[in-house]
Amino acid sequence: MSDEENIVDPSHPRYESLMIRKKVAEAGVKGMLADSAMIAHGRGEAFDYLLGEQTIPSAREATKEAAARLVRARKPVLSLNGNAIALAGQEFLTIASQLDCPVEINIFYRTPERMGALLGHLKMLNTKLGLDVEILGGVPDARIEGLEGPRGACQSNGIFEADTILVPLEDGDRCEALVAMGKEVLVIDLNPLSRSSRGGTVGIVDEVTRVAKNLIQMIPQKPQPTDWNNNQALQAALNHITTSMSDRFA
Amino acid sequence: MSDEENIVDPSHPRYESLMIRKKVAEAGVKGMLADSAMIAHGRGEAFDYLLGEQTIPSAREATKEAAARLVRARKPVLSLNGNAIALAGQEFLTIASQLDCPVEINIFYRTPERMGALLGHLKMLNTKLGLDVEILGGVPDARIEGLEGPRGACQSNGIFEADTILVPLEDGDRCEALVAMGKEVLVIDLNPLSRSSRGGTVGIVDEVTRVAKNLIQMIPQKPQPTDWNNNQALQAALNHITTSMSDRFA
Repeated sequence: MSDEENIVDPSHPRYESLMIRKKVAEAGVKGMLADSAMIAHGRGEAFDYLLGEQTIPSAREATKEAAARLVRARKPVLSLNGNAIALAGQEFLTIASQLDCPVEINIFYRTPERMGALLGHLKMLNTKLGLDVEILGGVPDARIEGLEGPRGACQSNGIFEADTILVPLEDGDRCEALVAMGKEVLVIDLNPLSRSSRGGTVGIVDEVTRVAKNLIQMIPQKPQPTDWNNNQALQAALNHITTSMSDRFA
Repeated sequence: MSDEENIVDPSHPRYESLMIRKKVAEAGVKGMLADSAMIAHGRGEAFDYLLGEQTIPSAREATKEAAARLVRARKPVLSLNGNAIALAGQEFLTIASQLDCPVEINIFYRTPERMGALLGHLKMLNTKLGLDVEILGGVPDARIEGLEGPRGACQSNGIFEADTILVPLEDGDRCEALVAMGKEVLVIDLNPLSRSSRGGTVGIVDEVTRVAKNLIQMIPQKPQPTDWNNNQALQAALNHITTSMSDRFA
């Protein structure tokens, strides 16, 4: 990242979005991300732009539902990929501490270097926050059924045995495989049309750092789960986008 | 880019999109792109996904209008940034040859290294295609009025004196500054709501390699310019997106 690119003007109308982008770029420099992570982040930026870079009402409801199901869970786990750790590693450790559950690093393009960088970053944040959250993923000993190769690797005391999993920014295949294993899958994804959003138990159509901050507020209130209609919530997100596109140039 | 990321399965439903992405990643490795280029590409991917990764009818009309105005122009120029060169450098040289006009490299984050990599790449393509297109941008001697710093640098025999400019993937500020100088600005941008799309004379809401290939077909047919209603064309693109989002989960 060049010096010029590093400077973000606080008066810029998209300041928050540019600061979030900066976090991704910095994590890239630290070796925490796959090359495709920047492209994935850009895709998310476009959808967030269409949502008005805000938590829309249906996303707030979905976040509350996710909080309720995490609180109710017998064995919850937070599945974190590189972008989730780069953007909200601190917040996810806080959530895991609230829930007294582990986090598990689960990345699509697994290399020892990237796993090492992500483990090191989370351990550093654990210390910084004075927390003792269990960080899994480094020594996989089980497999997500139906996924080939390193993408299916997981830990038995984490994702494999969990009944409820929070998956920010998850690949569609893996989301579907986790649902097929009978787990409650709580998805954070800015694209309401993605297979992850559609395939999960609860799809939260919102930016990951905003969701993480909302969860930290909501979990201590111990909300109650409802009969969640995921399709209805996703259509509400689409309707929010389409309403903002109607008659723009009339 | 890791080996795993480099493999694109031709049976993948988004094969074309993944091959386009691969070109951007490879140009990044060659030093042709700013760090933000991958994020910008991801934003484009999201809009292309919403358009169905196809040239929609209003975009085809806009491309034909752009072809007509390039053919009519007294002094046209193609303004190329890193992503445009990475994705369709060969096609833009072909178009410049058809129009007998120069291309000018005009990048937002200008460094000598990046300019050198882009100039070298275009020169290599010129030779490969057996063309002799003039490649400007290396020795700026004029300024786009109203833009501070290196972003305003341009060449007098290129962008500065041109009456009609094709700008793929342009920054909103620069697009507006070129329009304010009285030029016809033909914009390629997948976001129909961007300042570039809205501020340009003709906004083509389509993916840059598809547009470049369409222009190569259309220019020899010498189409006639019309009274172009840019807002109407942009609203048509928005309507295409919103129609595809209606009642998806009904």
